[in-house]
Amino acid sequence: MIKSQETDSRGGGFATRGRDDAVALDNADPLREFRSRFVIDDLVYLDGNSLGRLPKATVERVADVVSVQWGERVVRGWGDGWLDLPLAVGDRLGSAALGAAPGQVVIGDSTTVCFYKLVSAALDLRPERRQIVADVDNFPTDRYVLEGLAQARSLELVWLRFDRAGGPTVDEVASAVGPGTALVTFSHVSYRSAYMAPMAAINAVARDAGALTVWDLSHSAGSVPVALDADGTDLAVGCTYKYLNGGPGAPAYMYVRRSLQADVRQPIWGWLGRRDPFEMAQGYAVADGMRGLLSGTPPVLALSAVDEGVRLVAEAGIEAIREKGIALTSFAIALVDERLAQLGVSIASPRDPAVRGAHVALAVEGASELCAALRARDVVVDFRRPDVIRFGLSPLTTRFVDVWDGVEALRELLQARDG
Amino acid sequence: MIKSQETDSRGGGFATRGRDDAVALDNADPLREFRSRFVIDDLVYLDGNSLGRLPKATVERVADVVSVQWGERVVRGWGDGWLDLPLAVGDRLGSAALGAAPGQVVIGDSTTVCFYKLVSAALDLRPERRQIVADVDNFPTDRYVLEGLAQARSLELVWLRFDRAGGPTVDEVASAVGPGTALVTFSHVSYRSAYMAPMAAINAVARDAGALTVWDLSHSAGSVPVALDADGTDLAVGCTYKYLNGGPGAPAYMYVRRSLQADVRQPIWGWLGRRDPFEMAQGYAVADGMRGLLSGTPPVLALSAVDEGVRLVAEAGIEAIREKGIALTSFAIALVDERLAQLGVSIASPRDPAVRGAHVALAVEGASELCAALRARDVVVDFRRPDVIRFGLSPLTTRFVDVWDGVEALRELLQARDG
Repeated sequence: MIKSQETDSRGGGFATRGRDDAVALDNADPLREFRSRFVIDDLVYLDGNSLGRLPKATVERVADVVSVQWGERVVRGWGDGWLDLPLAVGDRLGSAALGAAPGQVVIGDSTTVCFYKLVSAALDLRPERRQIVADVDNFPTDRYVLEGLAQARSLELVWLRFDRAGGPTVDEVASAVGPGTALVTFSHVSYRSAYMAPMAAINAVARDAGALTVWDLSHSAGSVPVALDADGTDLAVGCTYKYLNGGPGAPAYMYVRRSLQADVRQPIWGWLGRRDPFEMAQGYAVADGMRGLLSGTPPVLALSAVDEGVRLVAEAGIEAIREKGIALTSFAIALVDERLAQLGVSIASPRDPAVRGAHVALAVEGASELCAALRARDVVVDFRRPDVIRFGLSPLTTRFVDVWDGVEALRELLQARDG
Repeated sequence: MIKSQETDSRGGGFATRGRDDAVALDNADPLREFRSRFVIDDLVYLDGNSLGRLPKATVERVADVVSVQWGERVVRGWGDGWLDLPLAVGDRLGSAALGAAPGQVVIGDSTTVCFYKLVSAALDLRPERRQIVADVDNFPTDRYVLEGLAQARSLELVWLRFDRAGGPTVDEVASAVGPGTALVTFSHVSYRSAYMAPMAAINAVARDAGALTVWDLSHSAGSVPVALDADGTDLAVGCTYKYLNGGPGAPAYMYVRRSLQADVRQPIWGWLGRRDPFEMAQGYAVADGMRGLLSGTPPVLALSAVDEGVRLVAEAGIEAIREKGIALTSFAIALVDERLAQLGVSIASPRDPAVRGAHVALAVEGASELCAALRARDVVVDFRRPDVIRFGLSPLTTRFVDVWDGVEALRELLQARDG
């Protein structure tokens, strides 16, 4: 299926439409060498937005942490930097991908637990306000956490709804917030449509209404520049196993704007969030800064893996990553328009690259079965209800030929089905 | 320091007091082969109660999870059992070390987060009751979690206090609980004194008062038999990086008695605690059974490491482990009485092995400096405020000669100091 050399020149944003042209784009890609820094096989892997690929450095790093740090140093590893990992890797991530100055990012529990902590903390800072503004297209775990907290505190959830390729706009948010709004929370990039929300403008609207913001960066960090400090974000969380390539179930991060840190109190008071944890003293006394966001013992193995993924993003540079992300998604959209539209596939992501993350949602009947059929051909994409195939185009590991091969495989399946 | 052949025969529980006698005990140890299943060097490691040693199988397992499951299978790993790991390893742990029938143990977040979830859930089941009975010697993170929840819910914490080698007795608990008690929570084995609480009897007292119990098994599971089902325990948590040898910062487990599962609701509503998580549907609907205790994505690398540690405990058998734990701690106490008592060291753990876990607390002036000096001699023990040196005697990896060498190293340091 990979041999097709069809040269269709219907025009559009890209002059290139054959596989050779995809190869040429790869050859001209300034990030092309980064692919060799990952463990990569013949798979056409278009799901790095779900689980990123394995950096070669991570294989070595994890083996070292296991065999040397744990195996030889054993408990003395605590003196060798384990305690500093959540903050050190957090700072590195903040600098590489989040637009966050040091001392505002910490890596801790799962995304769900981190989101719970920050939403709880935000609600505690606005005890008189009874509303949370959110959207029905946010990633499910965020919605469920909000439901749980709203029930526990008898709050009202104000759910926004959008077109399928859409997401929150400034106007929609402005019309939803008011003096009763405690909190406004969205994903920066939608897990399904790839719509990228206007973070700075929404922050301003929320701030003007006296509400706090909590952003979920899971589907943006590591693929598009995030400017938490400059955009005036209050609080943010995100996972590290997508574009940050931290590994399955890797721990998530929390961001708290420096000026809020003295007031923010998360609800899970654990020993590693206490001042002088090894004193093991009576009475909780929250640690200064981001350490106070921690609860339990840091997951040393997993944190070390995250560190390697973050280092690769830092080395490549988020601006270069973004540029390639735009090129990959634009190429994918052009190919879909040209080769798949007549077979019933439409684009369910924004066509404007300025408001699109690094994946493309394709709407097609029978998407679930098509995803399974693609996987059977070693083209790994994923399905999202009701009818979406996501092409995740992680810029450090995805080639233009992968996009071409993925589209071509889908074309063959659709032709066989319709024929 | 290891060459001393002094033969003191003051008598006592052990007829053996020289290093040769320790060697003889090792030779007669039915578990002696298990030490070869771990990565072990020349270190006299007496801190397996803080961080257990590295199983050789874990080196292979983690490398496989990283390079094959993540590297090659990538996101398809979810179809290969990642989602089942929290329950499968939980069941294995329940059977091997907790006396818990299948379907009652799940491995998830840090011990702190797990404890927060279960205490919250228990308090929600007793909304009219305003008191929590706990003790000032519980591990700090448990105390801090309780303080945080008590403050958030305006509850009263009733703190029990004990002698330094002690812990909660049935009478003390009985005198503290009443119709206002929502929850009774202790460590099964005290992290400092090694006192082992009478779990079944305390459960009965709590149950008679209408209160729920939450036990922390961190310092007992894997070293002493725990009988959660038989003892009528309601809820329990514990860490996996001590006697279960799961690795630094490994995830913790939760136990919920089957008859409570339909009613228990933990507060952090995440996608993996929802029925049919990959439906990503609107509205949280708690999953059946222990899956409903989960929140975020399982930490796949760390969970796999835990699995190997648990398998070793299962293979050795908890009864044999307990027998060796009693022999090791009794040997340590006999050596301290004989060789260190006259140098100012006293036992701060129960002398009755029936109520003692697998570590021994030694009280001595200058304990902190002595610990540092021991570590400088490659004898790894740890210090607990105000004046305790803990000798942790993890039965699968600690030899009788390690105990002898540790005591002898301490004797030399004390003699040098006093001389």
